[in-house]
Amino acid sequence: MIRARPEQQVPLDDRGLAYGDGLFETVLVRDGAALLWDEHLARLSRGSRVLGIPLPPANELERLPLQAGPGLHVLKFILTRGSGGRGYLPSSAPTPRLVWQLAPFTPQPQRWQAGVRARHCRLRLSIQPVLAGIKHLNRLENVLARREWSDPDVAEGVLCDSGGRLIEATCMNLFWQRGGRLETPRLEGCGVAGTLREALLERLALTEVDVGPEALIEAEAVWLGNSIQGLWPLAQLDDADGTPCRRWVIGDMHRALQVEAHALLDYPVSFEV
Amino acid sequence: MIRARPEQQVPLDDRGLAYGDGLFETVLVRDGAALLWDEHLARLSRGSRVLGIPLPPANELERLPLQAGPGLHVLKFILTRGSGGRGYLPSSAPTPRLVWQLAPFTPQPQRWQAGVRARHCRLRLSIQPVLAGIKHLNRLENVLARREWSDPDVAEGVLCDSGGRLIEATCMNLFWQRGGRLETPRLEGCGVAGTLREALLERLALTEVDVGPEALIEAEAVWLGNSIQGLWPLAQLDDADGTPCRRWVIGDMHRALQVEAHALLDYPVSFEV
Repeated sequence: MIRARPEQQVPLDDRGLAYGDGLFETVLVRDGAALLWDEHLARLSRGSRVLGIPLPPANELERLPLQAGPGLHVLKFILTRGSGGRGYLPSSAPTPRLVWQLAPFTPQPQRWQAGVRARHCRLRLSIQPVLAGIKHLNRLENVLARREWSDPDVAEGVLCDSGGRLIEATCMNLFWQRGGRLETPRLEGCGVAGTLREALLERLALTEVDVGPEALIEAEAVWLGNSIQGLWPLAQLDDADGTPCRRWVIGDMHRALQVEAHALLDYPVSFEV
Repeated sequence: MIRARPEQQVPLDDRGLAYGDGLFETVLVRDGAALLWDEHLARLSRGSRVLGIPLPPANELERLPLQAGPGLHVLKFILTRGSGGRGYLPSSAPTPRLVWQLAPFTPQPQRWQAGVRARHCRLRLSIQPVLAGIKHLNRLENVLARREWSDPDVAEGVLCDSGGRLIEATCMNLFWQRGGRLETPRLEGCGVAGTLREALLERLALTEVDVGPEALIEAEAVWLGNSIQGLWPLAQLDDADGTPCRRWVIGDMHRALQVEAHALLDYPVSFEV
């Protein structure tokens, strides 16, 4: 296992660069302790099985969050298949490469409090069940979707797959309450199975569903969430052309799920903005 | 434009590494002259428009093949969006990064002469019209398909999309003659539009078609080709479990298309193996 510090680099022939042949995780670290660490390791492990990339020893990964000082940081690490192989054919005994960085992080309490505006993206996610759910390095669809808007007041973009099913936002998972039931999109064809989503699925009566974007219009409350930012209530959803198609008043229903999610991340449950 | 020599590297925050946010080309270079150079530049240019990554000045690229000494080389260059941006959102004024290497190359005349064996892959390519045809860095599907076999006697794997349409091989395009007509898969939903394929489409009565894998069974002759290896006749096609499903006798019909393709690459048209 090759170790790289933030100042280090990967060579031109690294397969992560050449083909996106690798995985990554971004982890919230508070005072040197990683949040939702088991969920991050579980997803990395699923990805490593799908791609056939050996995992680093557990203690190689365990020591990464420990390098952070006091306060909040985001740990990002990338595990590539390393160099070697012939073209697309990987080496039968790859030497994976682990690179990582720690960066200070400040959350956005005003988004917890007042909620955010999101818009539908035009891009449709392609359906590839083999790669669905894992956090691999082939993320051009996310980049193209995120390039669809530049208005800083629009916090996220909502993505459907090529079959019209609601999947996720560009870097967050979707949750909503509809007819009193908590739901989140099933991610069997595409999308990233976020660690906050995994933790909420384990703990709550949260149901994975195959639905179209009309489910958001019908919802009493909608949230966007991930393991770094926590849970943002959705206050307004716009069409892909920027026309508002639904607004929500942020209230107790929104706070109830935030309490559950923020407990997992040691984020506050009442906010002073 | 950042220039990198073969010994150089890309930093951890390069978007090519982080997201596969970039493009690449592999170019056959004979005695310092690039073959099918216009086609490579045209594809790179299409990709740069799709992704919104500025192209390097033409003379930056033109000088790369000139670095090769006498004989045959493969030039590989990668153009990434560089570093910067916030998460998936690219910088509005990216500084692309160009890295490249030249490696000596030896073609395989025995494959030109006797043809090759290929097998169907189990993996189905996902359909993403926005990214179809261009040579971007999100190539995990190709890697996973290529991992499906290790028998060195199997030269390539044939890929269909999730709708069952024949698309390409893992690193080559497909061509066949059926009922006297030359055909190649239409690549509007996925696949890489190879430069040899582009050059043949410009020059020959070669038709792009939407067909299933049965077209190969019906074909009088099948070829696999790219701008590095030239054209390999298909001598045997196996199922995904390795069971032969069709054999072809290599004959004059195969040579006729090889003559056209190899003229574009300055490869011989009669082979001594």
